Amino acid sequence: MARTLRFSFDFISPYAYLAWTRLHDFAARHRLDLELEPILFAALLNEWGHKGPAEIPPKRTYTFKHVVRLAADQGVPLRPPPAHPFNPLLGLRLAALDLPAMQQRTIIDVLYARVWARGEGITDPQAVATALSTAGLDGRGLVEAAGSDAAKARLKAFTAGAVERGVFGVPTYEIDGEVFWGQDSIPHIERFLRGEDPAGPEVVAQWVDLPAQARRT
Amino acid sequence: MARTLRFSFDFISPYAYLAWTRLHDFAARHRLDLELEPILFAALLNEWGHKGPAEIPPKRTYTFKHVVRLAADQGVPLRPPPAHPFNPLLGLRLAALDLPAMQQRTIIDVLYARVWARGEGITDPQAVATALSTAGLDGRGLVEAAGSDAAKARLKAFTAGAVERGVFGVPTYEIDGEVFWGQDSIPHIERFLRGEDPAGPEVVAQWVDLPAQARRT
Repeated sequence: MARTLRFSFDFISPYAYLAWTRLHDFAARHRLDLELEPILFAALLNEWGHKGPAEIPPKRTYTFKHVVRLAADQGVPLRPPPAHPFNPLLGLRLAALDLPAMQQRTIIDVLYARVWARGEGITDPQAVATALSTAGLDGRGLVEAAGSDAAKARLKAFTAGAVERGVFGVPTYEIDGEVFWGQDSIPHIERFLRGEDPAGPEVVAQWVDLPAQARRT
Repeated sequence: MARTLRFSFDFISPYAYLAWTRLHDFAARHRLDLELEPILFAALLNEWGHKGPAEIPPKRTYTFKHVVRLAADQGVPLRPPPAHPFNPLLGLRLAALDLPAMQQRTIIDVLYARVWARGEGITDPQAVATALSTAGLDGRGLVEAAGSDAAKARLKAFTAGAVERGVFGVPTYEIDGEVFWGQDSIPHIERFLRGEDPAGPEVVAQWVDLPAQARRT
């Protein structure tokens, strides 16, 4: 039976976009089933009392430069979206709809291509519906479904589940209960898949119970 | 004239330790002068209203695993210190003393080897003095000097200067006014040194003025 790789993402994050562009090749190479989990990054920040990169002025500028550099490394198209941060809820609720896997993947592809590859927005329902229709989907029907209470509840449940499992950022990959954070995790996941993760339970046990001798006030 | 690479670090960060182990080879390979700048990471967090990795429980555990994996990648020794977070002030004030470059480097080497390579602490003045003396320095004299108002003022000035320049994390590398954050920055710095940074001013200009359409409340 194939192992399942869960990929948690928010359209707000260009790092998650960079991860997305390589996700399916990676999964195919290792014969992993994919579970795609849209989550609201802002809710993670609220949960952990943290700030996103866009909320610290010099880090915001740095993050833009960093993703430009990473996109160049990887040969991936990257253009500035119309605004950032933007409201990702329409996109996330579309990605959270209970649909066959191929349709879900197409929806996410269309949205990522718009916002990060082509620099278009994903906040305008009309434009998003048109883009989905162009990809062969029922754009209007999907956008309408994304506004339903059911879609909102699914996104909330995905986000709450991720928090419960200790997810604190996006993108996050999870396999066999092990969490890997960040688009640069692929080599570490590959080592984990080979059964050669150097951070096994006996090593981690030496670290997690370290006393904290200093705390900020 | 050689270009200067400024390296800003705090002993609290295992990522800064991993960066340190490769810093001098990197500088030598590119004929860069090094400026070593100890800064108090906790003060950066206070300044930007941010949390460190150790302050978010699942991220703390993840960070330990991550640095174990990175150390294995790089073949660098890594052992858990006696406590974490610990108070880094003695170490930082020692590293901030106004001394010849080779002495400063030896001090930092000794401290990093203790805390992250050998899993010893750097909070006990006696033990630190002994370790410095073993390395051929005047351990007692240095530890005494680190307690002076002058040493405290130097560390504060370094930290304030870093904040002023937009430093938000450790390790940070700066060259020609360009800030690179994180121990994984070396390939991007090398491209910058070749004059091939894809995140040049004209590209960055397209990004930094993006309107923010969504804010958390």
